[in-house]
Amino acid sequence: MTLRARFARYFTPHALRSYLAEFLSTFFFAFSAVASAMSAARQHSDPASSAALVAVAVANAFALSAAVYISATVSGGHVNPAVTFGLAIGGHVSVPTALLYWIAQMSGATLSCFLLKSFAVSQPVPAYSIAAQMTGFGASVLEGVATFALVYTVYASSDPRRCGSVGGVGSVMIGLVCGAGVLAIGPFSGGSMNPACAFGAGLASGRFRNQAVYWVGPLVGAALGGLLYENVMFPSRVNDDEDDDVNRVRA
Amino acid sequence: MTLRARFARYFTPHALRSYLAEFLSTFFFAFSAVASAMSAARQHSDPASSAALVAVAVANAFALSAAVYISATVSGGHVNPAVTFGLAIGGHVSVPTALLYWIAQMSGATLSCFLLKSFAVSQPVPAYSIAAQMTGFGASVLEGVATFALVYTVYASSDPRRCGSVGGVGSVMIGLVCGAGVLAIGPFSGGSMNPACAFGAGLASGRFRNQAVYWVGPLVGAALGGLLYENVMFPSRVNDDEDDDVNRVRA
Amino acid sequence: MTLRARFARYFTPHALRSYLAEFLSTFFFAFSAVASAMSAARQHSDPASSAALVAVAVANAFALSAAVYISATVSGGHVNPAVTFGLAIGGHVSVPTALLYWIAQMSGATLSCFLLKSFAVSQPVPAYSIAAQMTGFGASVLEGVATFALVYTVYASSDPRRCGSVGGVGSVMIGLVCGAGVLAIGPFSGGSMNPACAFGAGLASGRFRNQAVYWVGPLVGAALGGLLYENVMFPSRVNDDEDDDVNRVRA
Amino acid sequence: MTLRARFARYFTPHALRSYLAEFLSTFFFAFSAVASAMSAARQHSDPASSAALVAVAVANAFALSAAVYISATVSGGHVNPAVTFGLAIGGHVSVPTALLYWIAQMSGATLSCFLLKSFAVSQPVPAYSIAAQMTGFGASVLEGVATFALVYTVYASSDPRRCGSVGGVGSVMIGLVCGAGVLAIGPFSGGSMNPACAFGAGLASGRFRNQAVYWVGPLVGAALGGLLYENVMFPSRVNDDEDDDVNRVRA
Repeated sequence: MTLRARFARYFTPHALRSYLAEFLSTFFFAFSAVASAMSAARQHSDPASSAALVAVAVANAFALSAAVYISATVSGGHVNPAVTFGLAIGGHVSVPTALLYWIAQMSGATLSCFLLKSFAVSQPVPAYSIAAQMTGFGASVLEGVATFALVYTVYASSDPRRCGSVGGVGSVMIGLVCGAGVLAIGPFSGGSMNPACAFGAGLASGRFRNQAVYWVGPLVGAALGGLLYENVMFPSRVNDDEDDDVNRVRA
Repeated sequence: MTLRARFARYFTPHALRSYLAEFLSTFFFAFSAVASAMSAARQHSDPASSAALVAVAVANAFALSAAVYISATVSGGHVNPAVTFGLAIGGHVSVPTALLYWIAQMSGATLSCFLLKSFAVSQPVPAYSIAAQMTGFGASVLEGVATFALVYTVYASSDPRRCGSVGGVGSVMIGLVCGAGVLAIGPFSGGSMNPACAFGAGLASGRFRNQAVYWVGPLVGAALGGLLYENVMFPSRVNDDEDDDVNRVRA
Repeated sequence: MTLRARFARYFTPHALRSYLAEFLSTFFFAFSAVASAMSAARQHSDPASSAALVAVAVANAFALSAAVYISATVSGGHVNPAVTFGLAIGGHVSVPTALLYWIAQMSGATLSCFLLKSFAVSQPVPAYSIAAQMTGFGASVLEGVATFALVYTVYASSDPRRCGSVGGVGSVMIGLVCGAGVLAIGPFSGGSMNPACAFGAGLASGRFRNQAVYWVGPLVGAALGGLLYENVMFPSRVNDDEDDDVNRVRA
Repeated sequence: MTLRARFARYFTPHALRSYLAEFLSTFFFAFSAVASAMSAARQHSDPASSAALVAVAVANAFALSAAVYISATVSGGHVNPAVTFGLAIGGHVSVPTALLYWIAQMSGATLSCFLLKSFAVSQPVPAYSIAAQMTGFGASVLEGVATFALVYTVYASSDPRRCGSVGGVGSVMIGLVCGAGVLAIGPFSGGSMNPACAFGAGLASGRFRNQAVYWVGPLVGAALGGLLYENVMFPSRVNDDEDDDVNRVRA
């Protein structure tokens, strides 16, 4: 295949639709995730209430479920550079495609943050931030663990042993993991688990302090999640089929 | 076909059932959406708390999921004039049917608001309203973006490449998008995304200020969402089947 | 068939399992619904906060979804005397079976309320109650509308045109309708929609004021919901098949 | 089979994957359950608000749904020593496997609690605790009832009469039961329903007061739930098939 043909592979109608799907899904997700934080801050004199945490977590869970669902049949429903990275590490997405997905995701998140900056007046766009007592390393670990769970769930949704796929119950589960992650680590490390949202919110707010936390932790966590599921959890199907009768609930 | 026969097509038993299904589903949805705002206002001295926002958003999400689900097999589960408009733009619903759906939806929402006005005493029916600092244009944009996401999700639920349809997981997703929308834009633009609810609440409260916001934004957003999915996301199935092996998570 | 044989039909192993399934599901549901109100009251100095409303509504939604799910394959998953009544009105359950289901449901709810009275100390079991400004008639109407939606959803879940049944996504939907109902009418009329829970909580708290509200409203609403779906929404399949191509989103 | 061969059965690649799946799922679940309590405590001056209860309950529900889902195809998705016990009582898991699952589950929960102790600074890891007025026996009963419902739901998810399995809608239901349980009994008995989480949180906080409550109640409840479903609810399929036409909603 010539270089030109190789290049053209990444710009077929199907591929372009994938990038647009990732762009739109990340746009919707970042819109809900960031705007819900602005709304909660607007609603209450004390933005650090448990009710505000629930509002943001539920918005993340609902929006991510739907964002994965709507792009699942077109682009695979990543909606997150860390997920794309974790799938690329496992060999499910080629490197050039992953880079183009990243561009689409970051553009989508950035557009939504600037749109909110322009139209949702009276509230600043909030950058993701870590608690005063947290170190950057500690915050990265927490973001990494939550992203590990997220990418592991993405892999589990496409497990060939399962009938329900990423476009069905799987997309609900991916949203639920994200919501649980925000409830767990939000007040400590910001609860982003998504470098695109952190990037877009950083750009719109002009505040890039601790940005590295939202890249290093999630990418490392995503890589570990992908490698683990790919190499250990998918059965090798060669020499361990004879023990299928052990350890199982009746199917 | 004679004019009479044409006319009769829209009043077959099947068609009448569709209008009744839209009437009932919009009645249930508007009942929950409006009454939950009244309940939250009643519960708390400060109706603008994050907890009240969560209460209203969850009521919207739960009620819309169910409202779409129960009418999906009969009328397609629109429950929203903007959704009907978005589907008509894409050619999935004829113009006369769309108009009859609109009448059914607006009647259902209006009935529920007047029923609440009569029986849920001590609380006024709240009209949807925009925040003091917002312009009508800004509020329309926010309502439009959220409705864009909603209609896009409706289209995605009926994507022929997907097995789970609008009557299954799809109706959950449509509800979740609505809930995320309320959490995102509720405190800024009211978070209606549904002209029928805005109309019914306006009529019952006698307050039509900014009513245009809840029609222009959602209808424009719905049209864009429908056109985009219809023309770009559904594959053309003619000249881009050869690249199906790229960009995909293993199915 | 002799009288004895007729009688024996209602006490076969299968039938007894059904009653036990209804007993257990209503026990679990009433346990969650009533205990969550006690927990919310215990958590906060002001039990009438929006957060308490969300807590109770979410507990109702989650518990009813699961309660319907676990009994769906055994007894049909009614978990509510009003649902049983609505299904009996439509001819899906015989009158003797309906009465035995009622006994099972009311016993389950009563047991859970007395168990909470004995073991969840320091909080009284709360009877469902209506707001000071509400009339009994107004509260009955609100409870009736919410139960109408609930029973209509139960019928929709068993619609023969739908693949997902009451044991799958349908049971989620039934729970969501219940949660939306609590958020909508809870602060006005109590948000019971279930005579068995109102009965059990009344017995354990010794407070039967307005008990009629939780029977008249739900039973009338259930009957209307059942009659409407049974006679209008299920297609007659005789003389209106020729218009199936109108009014539909592409399947 | 020699002793060595017997022993080897529990350390095949498939079996080891099962233990790792339980370890990871319980790690994720305990991470969300414990961290959400820490986050809610951090958010608000009053950790005993209804909003904090909702935050913890939603985190439990979302995280358990996903934790069951991701391990369902590998290990059966127990994520809880009480569930493993309930399935072992019913004969679905052998005793050695159950013990190895317990070790995996308790290790996972303990690791997550120590990880939170190290990295989520400024908040102590909270041990599960019972309300001042509660006796240990009363708390055990409440934990037992909630775990009974949980294990009963696990059994119902694998009911052979049901198409949707533990890896689909069933895992959502298991999460919902857990969330409803936290909302119901959290403020009274702690709302653990999971001995592994209670053990891990106890170890990390150095506080083992009332630990027995989180073992005795759940294990007894799980055993009752398992025995009941196994022996009564699964139809015997021998002498009661002739009455299948009674007591059922149309399929």
